Amino acid sequence: MRIKILIRLKSQILEPQGKVIEQSLNNLGFNEFNNIRQGKLIELDLPDNLNKEEKDQKIDSACKKLLVNDIIEEYEVL
Amino acid sequence: MRIKILIRLKSQILEPQGKVIEQSLNNLGFNEFNNIRQGKLIELDLPDNLNKEEKDQKIDSACKKLLVNDIIEEYEVL
Repeated sequence: MRIKILIRLKSQILEPQGKVIEQSLNNLGFNEFNNIRQGKLIELDLPDNLNKEEKDQKIDSACKKLLVNDIIEEYEVL
Repeated sequence: MRIKILIRLKSQILEPQGKVIEQSLNNLGFNEFNNIRQGKLIELDLPDNLNKEEKDQKIDSACKKLLVNDIIEEYEVL
């Protein structure tokens, strides 16, 4: 199965790239776009024979050990 | 409403960051993780009073004009 992990800076952390994107979009006339923040997307394959619990446990563990900096980032699995 | 735009390199384009993540995960014992690719996540607010069509049209237009390089990237809206 294909897994998507969305990694974003926690909301209280300044994210300057999003601000730049927002300014650029505003300059192009896209004034309805607000509060833009950029994050990371990591997509990966896991074997189909894992059950939900094993899958969640493996992803959580990989996020905590490598993919996500828990101090400033949070993640969401799709 | 909060919109998520997932931007990824097209599958035929080499994505070296994903390979590095895959190697690192394998070194940590996560051997079930395969075909890892890293992309971008852009999150933004759009006014709630837009209907689905207006919303889709605005996002598509912003992606084509600024956010996505159509030659090497593709996007998905959540």
